[in-house]
Amino acid sequence: MGSENEGIVFVGRKPAINYVMAATLQINRGVKKIVLKARGRAISRAVDVAEITRLKYFPGKIRISDIRTGTEEIINPDGSRRDISVIEIELTQE
Amino acid sequence: MGSENEGIVFVGRKPAINYVMAATLQINRGVKKIVLKARGRAISRAVDVAEITRLKYFPGKIRISDIRTGTEEIINPDGSRRDISVIEIELTQE
Repeated sequence: MGSENEGIVFVGRKPAINYVMAATLQINRGVKKIVLKARGRAISRAVDVAEITRLKYFPGKIRISDIRTGTEEIINPDGSRRDISVIEIELTQE
Repeated sequence: MGSENEGIVFVGRKPAINYVMAATLQINRGVKKIVLKARGRAISRAVDVAEITRLKYFPGKIRISDIRTGTEEIINPDGSRRDISVIEIELTQE
């Protein structure tokens, strides 16, 4: 079906409502599946974005269809490495 | 069968490794399914606990079998209410 039917929202350090608005905009344009992506401490915020979008903005219309976690390796400016957790939350229009 | 086969670890504000140890202890005692529960900002830490337990302590032996999110209402001491996101991450022995 092409790119119109899937959207990605990267959740970072801004307030959750900013990302809720980004997801809402895409859903209202007809995008059927939105993937919220976050890592590290922004993971909690991504869950907030999913819950607020689902319950307050599209009650009964959007559901969380999948949640996946993983681990990525970050290379710091000094060359050291550390692991960071990542999450992907899939929102789908019913 | 019975309670020995399911354990719960509440993930709060302590370092992730504390909760990894709590989960590891239960797994080593033969508990087949561990549910990590967290809310608010501890959600990111619960994902860290799941990823560290899975990849570093039980590689190939433990998998994330389910991730559920939800919203709970908190009543503050002054009587006001606010919503908080919650997560449950299910770890299962292969």
